[in-house]
Amino acid sequence: MSSAIVLFAHGARDPEWAQPFAKIRAQIQARLPDTPVVLAFLELMPPTLTDTISRLDEQGARHITLIPMFLARGGHLKQDLPILIAHIQARHPGLTLHLSPAIGEVETILLQLSDWICDEHRAHQ
Amino acid sequence: MSSAIVLFAHGARDPEWAQPFAKIRAQIQARLPDTPVVLAFLELMPPTLTDTISRLDEQGARHITLIPMFLARGGHLKQDLPILIAHIQARHPGLTLHLSPAIGEVETILLQLSDWICDEHRAHQ
Repeated sequence: MSSAIVLFAHGARDPEWAQPFAKIRAQIQARLPDTPVVLAFLELMPPTLTDTISRLDEQGARHITLIPMFLARGGHLKQDLPILIAHIQARHPGLTLHLSPAIGEVETILLQLSDWICDEHRAHQ
Repeated sequence: MSSAIVLFAHGARDPEWAQPFAKIRAQIQARLPDTPVVLAFLELMPPTLTDTISRLDEQGARHITLIPMFLARGGHLKQDLPILIAHIQARHPGLTLHLSPAIGEVETILLQLSDWICDEHRAHQ
């Protein structure tokens, strides 16, 4: 193993909350069977980002793509995540980390959401 | 006006947080120029869902498509939103409300997110 994907989501008290992220994880894993694809959470549900990346490092990952599964950028992505990343990079100097845009910053995804909302509205008028 | 679209998001202290939702709103508005497309928030930023729907009702909306802009279903969608909707329906009996699935419950959207994540990973390995 040399690369891995971490889907980083907020977390919630309700375990069912994680279902969409688990589905996305499984879809990506099916397409990239040799790449570990794992979930990590900011709070309220395990595992933490720090623990997840430590485990991937132990397993031999050298490059990690980190995907913030957030629709919008607020304090969690502007303050909390940079602190977590600085801490992780200090502990794992041999590891390269690509922090992707949050999903709500990706124009393609916004357009796909708009498409779906227009269809949903037309179908239920 | 007879129908309208409400994009219902969580809200945050940081005003910039709303940007992706404002972009989606504008994209939909451009495609449906005769349909009011408005944002409403659960907490931390105005306007509330209740105020938004009261205003649309005053303006003559008879049918509203309500889109929960949430990736996952937790307490906000399972407890808070049904209470809000019951309150709104009691106050606006002449109005029909279509509550769409949350965006993280829509298979097409999950697949589009998985596609983008695979591309993002491949592009940065």
